[in-house]
Amino acid sequence: MNCSIISIGTELLFGQIINTNTVYLSKKLNELGLNVYYHYTVGDNENRLKEILDVALSKTDLIITTGGLGPTQDDLTKETIAKAMDKKLVRHEDSYRKLSDFFDKVHTKMCENNLKQVYLPEGSKVVPNDCGTAPGFIIEENEKIVISFPGPPKEMKMMFDHYVKEYLHKKSKHSIHSKVIRLFGIGESRVETDLLDLISSQTNPTIATYAKEGEVSIRVTAKASSLEEADQLVDSMIAKIEDRLKEFIYSKDDEELVEVVANKLLQNNKTISFAESCTGGLIASTFTEIPGISQCLDRGIVTYSNAAKMDELGVKDETLKKYGAVSEQTAKEMALGLKNKTGSDICLAVTGIAGPGGGSEEKPIGLVYISMAYNNEIVCNEYHIFGDRNRVRRYTMLLALNMIRNILK
Amino acid sequence: MNCSIISIGTELLFGQIINTNTVYLSKKLNELGLNVYYHYTVGDNENRLKEILDVALSKTDLIITTGGLGPTQDDLTKETIAKAMDKKLVRHEDSYRKLSDFFDKVHTKMCENNLKQVYLPEGSKVVPNDCGTAPGFIIEENEKIVISFPGPPKEMKMMFDHYVKEYLHKKSKHSIHSKVIRLFGIGESRVETDLLDLISSQTNPTIATYAKEGEVSIRVTAKASSLEEADQLVDSMIAKIEDRLKEFIYSKDDEELVEVVANKLLQNNKTISFAESCTGGLIASTFTEIPGISQCLDRGIVTYSNAAKMDELGVKDETLKKYGAVSEQTAKEMALGLKNKTGSDICLAVTGIAGPGGGSEEKPIGLVYISMAYNNEIVCNEYHIFGDRNRVRRYTMLLALNMIRNILK
Repeated sequence: MNCSIISIGTELLFGQIINTNTVYLSKKLNELGLNVYYHYTVGDNENRLKEILDVALSKTDLIITTGGLGPTQDDLTKETIAKAMDKKLVRHEDSYRKLSDFFDKVHTKMCENNLKQVYLPEGSKVVPNDCGTAPGFIIEENEKIVISFPGPPKEMKMMFDHYVKEYLHKKSKHSIHSKVIRLFGIGESRVETDLLDLISSQTNPTIATYAKEGEVSIRVTAKASSLEEADQLVDSMIAKIEDRLKEFIYSKDDEELVEVVANKLLQNNKTISFAESCTGGLIASTFTEIPGISQCLDRGIVTYSNAAKMDELGVKDETLKKYGAVSEQTAKEMALGLKNKTGSDICLAVTGIAGPGGGSEEKPIGLVYISMAYNNEIVCNEYHIFGDRNRVRRYTMLLALNMIRNILK
Repeated sequence: MNCSIISIGTELLFGQIINTNTVYLSKKLNELGLNVYYHYTVGDNENRLKEILDVALSKTDLIITTGGLGPTQDDLTKETIAKAMDKKLVRHEDSYRKLSDFFDKVHTKMCENNLKQVYLPEGSKVVPNDCGTAPGFIIEENEKIVISFPGPPKEMKMMFDHYVKEYLHKKSKHSIHSKVIRLFGIGESRVETDLLDLISSQTNPTIATYAKEGEVSIRVTAKASSLEEADQLVDSMIAKIEDRLKEFIYSKDDEELVEVVANKLLQNNKTISFAESCTGGLIASTFTEIPGISQCLDRGIVTYSNAAKMDELGVKDETLKKYGAVSEQTAKEMALGLKNKTGSDICLAVTGIAGPGGGSEEKPIGLVYISMAYNNEIVCNEYHIFGDRNRVRRYTMLLALNMIRNILK
């Protein structure tokens, strides 16, 4: 069954609120094996809502609306759906009693406009609202289904989960299952090139790639008559992808890179310290987002000035003068100085040019050195990162996490 | 001018990401005096995208699309727009050179599919992408305008602000002017209560309040026939608001708190250092987002372990044992130790319990001490912050910034 979701409310068109209802409903409908083909948003305007309803009814079998069921004049959803489907609005007696009881209970006189809420399209099935005053409804006619929810996310979610999910589950013939693999160190276009034959021939499971600030995700989704079968289809496709891209995959469970690295540190009982120049504390700060990381993280030193690099890490004045603050030599002395000072198992140091100032022909913006001292080794990698100040800093952080991940493998 | 926004990407229909692009564009278009009438979302499917484009072109004058401009096979936006508007795709030479340069710079061989990104509809105006590889474009034809952006929010926002806003401003018949005041230390409901009479009677200018993780913004927007007139309307309303809420306002120009503080440090030529425990480098990292901050920022020390607090800052073992790591005494010793070590004009230290573990009845999650040594003074404030780990960390960072702002006033 193919679906449209229509969100109704002028505040959405003003950008005043984020449309979380659509995200929620999309996830739930996909889990039920229904295909969400369109999202529409329209304001509290009868003509434009009617137009969109007509478009949605012509293109899809299931239309879900949120918003516009309240008591005020600009709540027009029911009236417009009734018109589009050629139905009268009739008073729903159960809902009327519930509404009267509610106002008695809160010792408040009901304003006349509240009554509007208990008029529903004739022949519709009522979807009770246990958190609010506006009920929803389901109309099923001519092989089309229209389901209307009120706009407040708490009410909509509760109503969907309690009263609509099971109804839709019976209408759906499939189960859908999907998994997300995350990769680092490879671009989206290279991922696609390497998987082109799999992607081109995809029908079930399907493969979709996404790029996200230096990372790539691959979503594998399968549809089957049972969840178990869908699961198997996904896993066997993931095995094929892994054969080709194994070295870049850091999570097969949609985790952040920092989560993976932090968990490995915790499992291996390793301590870690950071010396950061251009990232200015971003690496330490990202690590400390993870609860319980205090078991591993000893300390971080943000040595922004040359004085700090010398005082805190024992970087030699001579090294700074001869090679500069952004150099392999300085990065290594930072890592070794940190190791001498802290004795942490892994000591990682970063120095680079984040921009917008400070670049030169010899040392352009985006030049970054990451050095790591662990066991009795010292390594240093040179990177050239493209982008603005924040991208250089963020990408450096990801590269540093990935270096740590590689030695913990 | 009436607008539609079309978001393109199957991941949106799966509910995997929140559509923040549409929120951003809606706000910006409304600020420009343009009417946003519809939002549409459609997957990476040529037929359905074509249908939606046709619907949008028939109903509105300006269509903005986001997504589907990347290098991979499922990126179909340009091809489909070209078809809908009966245009060929031609190679854009400037964009081609930029793309080649990019791959040269990062020392990576360009995959063939990347070339797809530099083919644009014939006769379109290019919208450069300074943060990514896929350029956008503007087609103006038969009194319709179509503008296409890539999907990554960072790229889209930058491109809109730098290259499209001014273009659209010229197309709008009204002048709209708005200013955003930012406040810290007051809740949104209190702001609304204090301004209720102004908000209730608003027609032009309008007043809108927004809450954002511990901060409140007030947007004042006026519409007039000239920008100058709109400007005056805004300024006189802001003066009224300032009369009532002056003590909480830190920016009348929509700046981040960190920008305001960093600029004050730079103007006053003050040096600063940080010692962070629960924030784990977040304060230093936030400061280092500001270009040129190296003039002021000497260093940051993330003393997560007790050993680090003693080694790096000379906190006494006795103090840690008697009062604990999260205490006024420890916070003050951290700040003083940092002052002794660095001699920075302002030395700020933070210790607290971010959760989810580590709380007790006596010292609950959210208890935070911020101490600051400057001139010959040492101060320490105790805070009780509500919320999860990330909120506690972020709010602590804002409180620290606000303490620095107050002494630089």
